[in-house]
Amino acid sequence: MGMGKRILETCFSPALYEPDLHAGSIVVIIDILRATSAICTAFANGATSIIPVAEVHEAKDFKNRGYLVAAERDGHVLDFADFGNSPFNFTRERVEGKTIVYSTTNGTGIIKMAASADAIVIGSFLNISSLTGWLINMEKDVVLFCSGWKNRFNLEDTLCAGAMAERLMESSLYLTICDSTLAAMDLWSLAKNDLSGYIEKVAQRSRLRDKGLDDCISFCLTPDFTKKIPVIKNGILVDNIL
Amino acid sequence: MGMGKRILETCFSPALYEPDLHAGSIVVIIDILRATSAICTAFANGATSIIPVAEVHEAKDFKNRGYLVAAERDGHVLDFADFGNSPFNFTRERVEGKTIVYSTTNGTGIIKMAASADAIVIGSFLNISSLTGWLINMEKDVVLFCSGWKNRFNLEDTLCAGAMAERLMESSLYLTICDSTLAAMDLWSLAKNDLSGYIEKVAQRSRLRDKGLDDCISFCLTPDFTKKIPVIKNGILVDNIL
Repeated sequence: MGMGKRILETCFSPALYEPDLHAGSIVVIIDILRATSAICTAFANGATSIIPVAEVHEAKDFKNRGYLVAAERDGHVLDFADFGNSPFNFTRERVEGKTIVYSTTNGTGIIKMAASADAIVIGSFLNISSLTGWLINMEKDVVLFCSGWKNRFNLEDTLCAGAMAERLMESSLYLTICDSTLAAMDLWSLAKNDLSGYIEKVAQRSRLRDKGLDDCISFCLTPDFTKKIPVIKNGILVDNIL
Repeated sequence: MGMGKRILETCFSPALYEPDLHAGSIVVIIDILRATSAICTAFANGATSIIPVAEVHEAKDFKNRGYLVAAERDGHVLDFADFGNSPFNFTRERVEGKTIVYSTTNGTGIIKMAASADAIVIGSFLNISSLTGWLINMEKDVVLFCSGWKNRFNLEDTLCAGAMAERLMESSLYLTICDSTLAAMDLWSLAKNDLSGYIEKVAQRSRLRDKGLDDCISFCLTPDFTKKIPVIKNGILVDNIL
C-alpha cells in the first residue's frame, strides 16, 4: 500500500451505491447495453449536449418545444420521439450541433444518486482509453458505477468496469480493497480474449435479441471508437473537451 | 431451455434481495467467514439448535436465563458471552446436546428478509456436498443468498455460491438466466484450483487478519466436514436430520 494512492472502487448496482462514501470521487457511469454507448456515440458524432429526463411527459414537453428526443420504453420507440436509444440512431446527420433529450428512468436516478461526487462521467468500451487516460491525470479516487438492470448485477457492465480497472491498476497509482473491483478484473481476464463470445451468455444479450435490438451489441464492445468523455454539468451531459 | 426446469438464482448482497421474487424458493444463506461455517460446525458437533438474535441485550437476556451464548461485536467477544463466533469455539465438549444463542445483526436481518421463502437453509463449504445433494432432491427453485459485508458484494461468499451453482447446474435440472450465477461460477472456475491462494486477496481476509481472527479461514474452505444441513424452523436453526 503506497502512501497517497487513490482509491478505486466498483459498485455493481444502484442498490449498492453509497453516496456518502463517494463524495469527492470521480464516478464513472457504465451502462454499455445501451445507454452509455449511445451517449458516447452521440458526442462522437458532434452532439452539443444531452438532457437526460426521467419521465415520458418531460420528454414530450421537450419535443413540443422543438428538441430532438430519443425515447424508448421496453424497447419500443415512443410515438412522439424522433428515435429510440440504440447508438445507431445517433448519426452525425441527426445529432451534429444539436441538443438531444434522452429519456432514461434508470440513468436519471443514477445521476441524482451520484450528485455528491466530484465529477460524473460516462464510460463505455467506446471511449475506454481516452477515459482511463483522463482519470489517471485527474488524481482523484474513482468509483466505477455499473448501472445494472432493474437494480440487479449484470455481467456486461461488470466486464467494462473490469477492463477499466485493469488499466487504472496497471498505472500503479490506485489502491483497491474492494472485492467488487477484484471480481470485475477477474471476470474481465476470463472474457477479454473473446468478448463477443462471452457476451453471448449474458442475460441482457437475450433480452435485446428477443426484442430485435441486438444489432448494436458488437459495436458497443468496440474499444476506442471515440475520444469523447461526456460529463455531467448541472444535470446535463456535455463534451468534456479534451 | 428444458420444460419444467427449476430456476437457480444468486443474490450478492442483502441490498439486492427481492423477497417477492423468491417466495416458494429454497434460500441458501451463505456467510462463510465466519457465520455459516460456525453454524455448520456447531451442528456437526452435536448442537441441538441455535437461536439467532440481533441485539446484544437479547443475547444477554438469554445468558441470564442459562443459555450458552456466542456473541461478538467487531471481533471482540462480549464480556457476558461464553465465547465468540469462530467455528473453533463450537467444540463437541461445549455444544453437544445444547441450544446455543448466536448473536448476529446481519444474519438475523437476512433470516427475516427471506421469511417468504419455502425453506431457509445454511450453506458453506463445510456442508456443500450434502446440501447440494439435498437441494437436487427437493425439486424447488433455489436462491443462493450471499450475505456480503455491510451490504457489499464479497468474494468469499460468491465463490461458495459459484461452487454450489456448478454442482446444481451439472445435474441439468436447473436453468439460470441470472448474470450473478454466471459470474459466481466463472469466479469459482478461476479460484477452485487454489482456493486458499485466491482467498488471500479478498477484503475479509485482511479484516480478519488485522483482528487476529484469521486462524479459521483454511478450515472454513474445507469441503464436506459435515453432512448437516441447518434449517430455519420458526426463526430457530435446527438440524435438518437427513
